Amino acid sequence: MIRIALDAMGGDYAPEEMIKGALMANRELPVEVILVGKAEVLNETLKKLKLKLPFIPASETIAMDESPVQAVRQKKDSSINVAVSLVKEGKADAVVSAGNTGALMASAIFTLGIIKGVQRPAIATELPLPTGKVLLLDAGANVDCTSHFLMQFAEMGSLYAEHVFHIHHPRVGLLNIGEEKLKGNRLVRESYPLLKQSPINFIGNVESKEILSGAADVVVCDGFIGNLILKFAESLGEAVFNLLKSEFERALTAKLGWFFLASSFNKFKKTVTYDDYGAAPFLGIQGIVYKAHGRAHATAIKSAIRETAEAVKENLVGFISKMGENR
Amino acid sequence: MIRIALDAMGGDYAPEEMIKGALMANRELPVEVILVGKAEVLNETLKKLKLKLPFIPASETIAMDESPVQAVRQKKDSSINVAVSLVKEGKADAVVSAGNTGALMASAIFTLGIIKGVQRPAIATELPLPTGKVLLLDAGANVDCTSHFLMQFAEMGSLYAEHVFHIHHPRVGLLNIGEEKLKGNRLVRESYPLLKQSPINFIGNVESKEILSGAADVVVCDGFIGNLILKFAESLGEAVFNLLKSEFERALTAKLGWFFLASSFNKFKKTVTYDDYGAAPFLGIQGIVYKAHGRAHATAIKSAIRETAEAVKENLVGFISKMGENR
Repeated sequence: MIRIALDAMGGDYAPEEMIKGALMANRELPVEVILVGKAEVLNETLKKLKLKLPFIPASETIAMDESPVQAVRQKKDSSINVAVSLVKEGKADAVVSAGNTGALMASAIFTLGIIKGVQRPAIATELPLPTGKVLLLDAGANVDCTSHFLMQFAEMGSLYAEHVFHIHHPRVGLLNIGEEKLKGNRLVRESYPLLKQSPINFIGNVESKEILSGAADVVVCDGFIGNLILKFAESLGEAVFNLLKSEFERALTAKLGWFFLASSFNKFKKTVTYDDYGAAPFLGIQGIVYKAHGRAHATAIKSAIRETAEAVKENLVGFISKMGENR
Repeated sequence: MIRIALDAMGGDYAPEEMIKGALMANRELPVEVILVGKAEVLNETLKKLKLKLPFIPASETIAMDESPVQAVRQKKDSSINVAVSLVKEGKADAVVSAGNTGALMASAIFTLGIIKGVQRPAIATELPLPTGKVLLLDAGANVDCTSHFLMQFAEMGSLYAEHVFHIHHPRVGLLNIGEEKLKGNRLVRESYPLLKQSPINFIGNVESKEILSGAADVVVCDGFIGNLILKFAESLGEAVFNLLKSEFERALTAKLGWFFLASSFNKFKKTVTYDDYGAAPFLGIQGIVYKAHGRAHATAIKSAIRETAEAVKENLVGFISKMGENR
């Protein structure tokens, strides 16, 4: 049985949706979820939900807007630190949190450490596509990168797509403003030959407009750009959705149409929101750490746990470590 | 009468949509559009459209995928070069092209030059919002930037929003991955204090998810990031649109709904496409140069001409030059 520590205090809908997600995962997946959080808060929520679930107590919580490194250092008994420590102590195989991303990364680095040979750990995020999904990294851990960082992101992302998504020879692209080799800023021009030499299926530059058309299985960029793209994608999806909804609600014929279309529209909404999609692994950490979306509800938490369990089964740390050994 | 030179050979739907756009502008706006392009091609299209319009002949064209600097240097008599030259010679007040962006910029720099005191010209693109629009710059002219470039982009963008969009004290934001002053990569951290000191209404960092919610009137970033964001926005809008459409076309009830909703949907499509929006000015050039969207149809060309005429009326080169003089 795979044991997953879940930070029950992290995310906009904690703890209730975390508890519900844990329950769903325990029922539907071959996992045992270990909840971690404030005793009084969890006891109260469990009582309200008429549930009995064990949990590991943690006396502090880290807010979404707290300064990560400082919070992790000062709040030793925060739910993030306690959950990550369970992995360190061998009491859990992996940890999932929907809380403060920076704090989770800091806690992972301080407590679990970085895999030998890895220069910088990266956050890998999957974006849903009509035809599947694409892994984008780094999604925000490293704002200033060297070409060697990008080369390792490419290799780690390729290994992840191969072992966890089970994609044979995943196609890895370098995010750029044009397809030609000499396009782009200094960083990507310097990175191109390194990716070309590395033992991955490098397909060259990929433009931002090609990300969603599935041109590559893995898209590599620095963490500043990855984070900008990711947040922009979420906001644009929402903007289009709201614009369309308000347009449909205006006219009478539109209201009639709405009656017939409601189920299709809701199905569509499910596709563009993130309920069915997994979470973001921290690649290069000496342990399995996943960040779920801050706005994750129970279903998204269950999906995050499913993907995390898959990474445990496929030995994420093991296959990334082999990359490190070859350096 | 404001005279606008229009490159009739540039863009995916040239020359037909360029000619139609010119005709619409001539009829509806206080402008005189001067078409520039290959005589045999234009004569044939004009004949097909049963139109009689004068044009300035240019014997060559630059394709969308040609290497800009080389093409501009070698094809002296290309429609882009000829159209830009009309501005240099005082025969047109401004130029509009839907063709190769890099070639248009190269031609503008070689033929018209850069305004004194401006370090690098920038491409400013407007993105449509439910509540108005936002100016994003640089959208691709400068892939590697210094903090001083970004400061000037901010100042030029602010002046443009004030004089051409007629926004009083436009709010200028620095694109970043967080709101806090110390967030971001080295470039934006170095740029922040410069923007703070400059004579603009600097509102601090703006996150990518805030671009479309109208948090700022002007958003400043380097050209690599601006281009990635812009192209991604276009592709995501289309992806959402297609996904929704295919979802609606699947079920029978959806087909019924579609019948009632068609007009609302088409109105929506108009909002997310770019027909009503202007073109991208090249700020910092010693002349008025606008890039229309490569996929612009006649209506979008008319809109581009409308905005270009407004910039002529408000003396774009004059107000940017004043910024240059203060250095």
